[in-house]
Amino acid sequence: MASRSRITRALTKADRVSASTLATRPSLLSCAARSFSTSTRRQFRSSAFCRVKFTTDSYPEIKRDSRFSQVTEDHVRHFKELLGSDAAVLDAVTNEAAADDMEPFNCDWMRKYRGHCRLVLKPASTEEVSKVLKFCNDNMLAVVPQGGNTGLVGGSVPVFDEIVINMSRMNKVRSFDDVSGVLTADAGAVLEIVDNYLAEKGYIFPLDLAAKGSCHIGGNVATNAGGLRLLRYGSLHGSVLGVEAVLPDGTIVDDLFKLRKNNTGYDIKQLFIGAEGTIGIITGISIHCPQRSKAVNVAFFGLESYEKVQLAFREAKGQLSEILSAFELMDNQSQALVKKVTKNNFPLENEYPFYCLIETSGSNSEHDSAKLEAFLEDVMEKEVVSDGVVAQDETQTKSLWGWREGISEASGAFGGVYKYDVSIPLKSLYRLVEDVKAKIQAAGLIGETDEYPVVDVVGYGHMGDSNLHLNVCVRRYDKKVEKILEPYVFEWIKDHEGSISAEHGLGLAKKKFIGYSRSDNMIGLMKQIKNLYDPVSGIVY
Amino acid sequence: MASRSRITRALTKADRVSASTLATRPSLLSCAARSFSTSTRRQFRSSAFCRVKFTTDSYPEIKRDSRFSQVTEDHVRHFKELLGSDAAVLDAVTNEAAADDMEPFNCDWMRKYRGHCRLVLKPASTEEVSKVLKFCNDNMLAVVPQGGNTGLVGGSVPVFDEIVINMSRMNKVRSFDDVSGVLTADAGAVLEIVDNYLAEKGYIFPLDLAAKGSCHIGGNVATNAGGLRLLRYGSLHGSVLGVEAVLPDGTIVDDLFKLRKNNTGYDIKQLFIGAEGTIGIITGISIHCPQRSKAVNVAFFGLESYEKVQLAFREAKGQLSEILSAFELMDNQSQALVKKVTKNNFPLENEYPFYCLIETSGSNSEHDSAKLEAFLEDVMEKEVVSDGVVAQDETQTKSLWGWREGISEASGAFGGVYKYDVSIPLKSLYRLVEDVKAKIQAAGLIGETDEYPVVDVVGYGHMGDSNLHLNVCVRRYDKKVEKILEPYVFEWIKDHEGSISAEHGLGLAKKKFIGYSRSDNMIGLMKQIKNLYDPVSGIVY
Repeated sequence: MASRSRITRALTKADRVSASTLATRPSLLSCAARSFSTSTRRQFRSSAFCRVKFTTDSYPEIKRDSRFSQVTEDHVRHFKELLGSDAAVLDAVTNEAAADDMEPFNCDWMRKYRGHCRLVLKPASTEEVSKVLKFCNDNMLAVVPQGGNTGLVGGSVPVFDEIVINMSRMNKVRSFDDVSGVLTADAGAVLEIVDNYLAEKGYIFPLDLAAKGSCHIGGNVATNAGGLRLLRYGSLHGSVLGVEAVLPDGTIVDDLFKLRKNNTGYDIKQLFIGAEGTIGIITGISIHCPQRSKAVNVAFFGLESYEKVQLAFREAKGQLSEILSAFELMDNQSQALVKKVTKNNFPLENEYPFYCLIETSGSNSEHDSAKLEAFLEDVMEKEVVSDGVVAQDETQTKSLWGWREGISEASGAFGGVYKYDVSIPLKSLYRLVEDVKAKIQAAGLIGETDEYPVVDVVGYGHMGDSNLHLNVCVRRYDKKVEKILEPYVFEWIKDHEGSISAEHGLGLAKKKFIGYSRSDNMIGLMKQIKNLYDPVSGIVY
Repeated sequence: MASRSRITRALTKADRVSASTLATRPSLLSCAARSFSTSTRRQFRSSAFCRVKFTTDSYPEIKRDSRFSQVTEDHVRHFKELLGSDAAVLDAVTNEAAADDMEPFNCDWMRKYRGHCRLVLKPASTEEVSKVLKFCNDNMLAVVPQGGNTGLVGGSVPVFDEIVINMSRMNKVRSFDDVSGVLTADAGAVLEIVDNYLAEKGYIFPLDLAAKGSCHIGGNVATNAGGLRLLRYGSLHGSVLGVEAVLPDGTIVDDLFKLRKNNTGYDIKQLFIGAEGTIGIITGISIHCPQRSKAVNVAFFGLESYEKVQLAFREAKGQLSEILSAFELMDNQSQALVKKVTKNNFPLENEYPFYCLIETSGSNSEHDSAKLEAFLEDVMEKEVVSDGVVAQDETQTKSLWGWREGISEASGAFGGVYKYDVSIPLKSLYRLVEDVKAKIQAAGLIGETDEYPVVDVVGYGHMGDSNLHLNVCVRRYDKKVEKILEPYVFEWIKDHEGSISAEHGLGLAKKKFIGYSRSDNMIGLMKQIKNLYDPVSGIVY
């Protein structure tokens, strides 16, 4: 976790930023992909570096707030003095030759957003963050906080000439208590590095997600990341014990408590969890980490209906209870796509309308296997589940997970994909997929030949968290499809009391759609909070 | 959960409010007891109803804010029209004969605090709460929200003539999803009734505490109650999915979301969790409930040192991992007291400096027993644990728990007890007990005969949550003892980065001590929030 390795990491991310026509399509900007496999990432990394369309060109309606100052040479001089180290200031204001070096900080890795920033600051301490923000606030300089820049909604890159405050130099574990499992670390520490550190001590970070090799734990907290372990370890609102953050005016929120119980006044730190850096910059966190499970088992099974999926989930919660760590849903269409793309042998003999993947994590492999097998026997006897397999070794475990994790890549293999990451009450969760498909079918847009834009509509996701991924797989992007999807999908979610953003946050992409998931009262209260901490809009994004 | 049964419940609570000289001792007011056994409660209930000293007499330094209006007959008439039902308004303003009926709402059940309220309102809907608060805000009438009135820090009763807004008529379960386990209920629903409702469906409320027969789930959320299940099910900040609340100006916070993932803006509801009703009144909650465990096992063991207790806890977390539901610490002194008072047979042959009680809850009794026995064998072989027993049936389970749960009552059996409920990092958790005892010994205040005020200093608590209960058991209350304890205990906790209130909140009792657990910056931020939602101090306590 030395500074050097972090810089290398940041630079390699630049390679992933390559040209894409996707960025020109506003309707796609509102529905970001959830997870990306390592192989997809590698493709980005190895492709030639190309320029991404400026966000200001994609969204000409977004105007720069003229109250903000332009960054001058005097400002740059001040920051260089303030931060000392050469590594701390990346400056194209006084040094035009550094313009290209700005790109990794101006562009998001999805290649959808690109800002005009000409100054990147990398403070090395909370005090430095405080001084930087106070100066920016006093001088009306807009800033955008940036963690690992792995966000999916355009929240971590500038739109105009905001100064990027990149947290990569604050990347140390500050302390770990191996009795209580409480970790305290800088916000810029990389999730995977922290998790590896914890693994050596028999603990686990209570969050896992595909971007773990790059994302910062401070960014995870700032975006209230959910990820793969939420079913088991719950939300960050429960596991984060303390937050250290800096408000736009430089005030340090020193709430880095390290114990699980503290009822002495308002829990202000909660506001920073999920605020996406809009009311302050998180500089450190303390978090309760559970013990790492010694045994992991995986089963994969087929079911005849979505009603049976719900029954199976109910039974799994009851019978597997404390060892259940994942309950993933995949529809037949999603598995057909993976089959077509990977040409792998499907784990079950027959096809079923639905499949589920169950993972257990526990402290005793023998007990867990026995529970899992008893569960499978029971649900098969009750004819809830039609067929199922249990992985016998790590290779089989990986192979079974492949059928779930391969969907994202397979969905895009035919040209493109419209993706929605939403939460919906379990009873109606899958109906969204059916309703969207019916509408597309009624419009005559789906078919097996090239004249139809839509290849298929597939649904999958974290059943355990009521979190659905809806993918509309297309041969080409088509306005007719887009018109059917939006605002229909958002309206549908509103009518079914769901959330238009289960995990990724609002960012720039979903900011204007917040009304589909929040009442006017709630939006008014949010504006009050923003105004409380940032009356002069010191932080813009 | 009909209205009738709630009223009966409220009235019986009146019987518990009896005279006590404790209320006259300011130093005791700052350190409330944590839990009270059913038998203690029964004693209160059966004792004659006596008047408690007014808080204004105990704390003459607290002055009524003269900006607030007095409640007039016109106000009462307005509220009667607004709320309609006779059951909704308890009025001693226009009806002097009802003065005695006010006592259960004016007094806390610890008999430490007593207000001068002459009007109790019991709204039956969120809209009614909104109309009441708006009217009070517009007319400068102070109010105090009241749930089950089981708090331990004087936060749920008035000090002056504030109107009590009692939530007991809003006591319905609104919905329950037996697939996701998400419950939505009125704030005034009683915890035990809700938990029994969930038990029938195979679920459990993710919180348990001694006052469950009376406390409201809205009050639990308002005070961020921790209780017995925190080790297993985590904090309410993680499990509460939605809050419906009314701000002082009548604005309804309609954030009653029912899914686990929703990243669409600031998580405002979190502010109401633990705010103790000072920025709004919670009227409803939605909460994620886990499946109820089928198997519960309990073990009790003796250890030679606090270092070994920490080792045992570490091992229990590792080996029992997902089934560990309690890890309780008791020192030898605490057990000696219970032995002396109950005259029960101690479960172990020999005495040890420390004892721990471990509880497991899981889905498979056989597996859990095997894990627990393997764990005990392991820690005994490593000489971490010196001796241990495992309960063989429910009677033994209750008996073992009795040694932990009996401490509170036994501590007070010699005359009185100074109680502190604090959290401290595990490494230094028990040292507080040793340091306090050493100070009292050095002052010559502890001994076996009547001339010494202090009988013993005992420590116990929820090791799994770093939550220590420090009891200084006395023959009589003595200023000399008090001078040693305060502010020494609070300073000690501050120096060791603990919290002066692990669970109970600040209320009136600990409000002035907040600086021992929070920085000036954090206190300033809290005042900002209070001022944001309650600029005219519509809610005072």
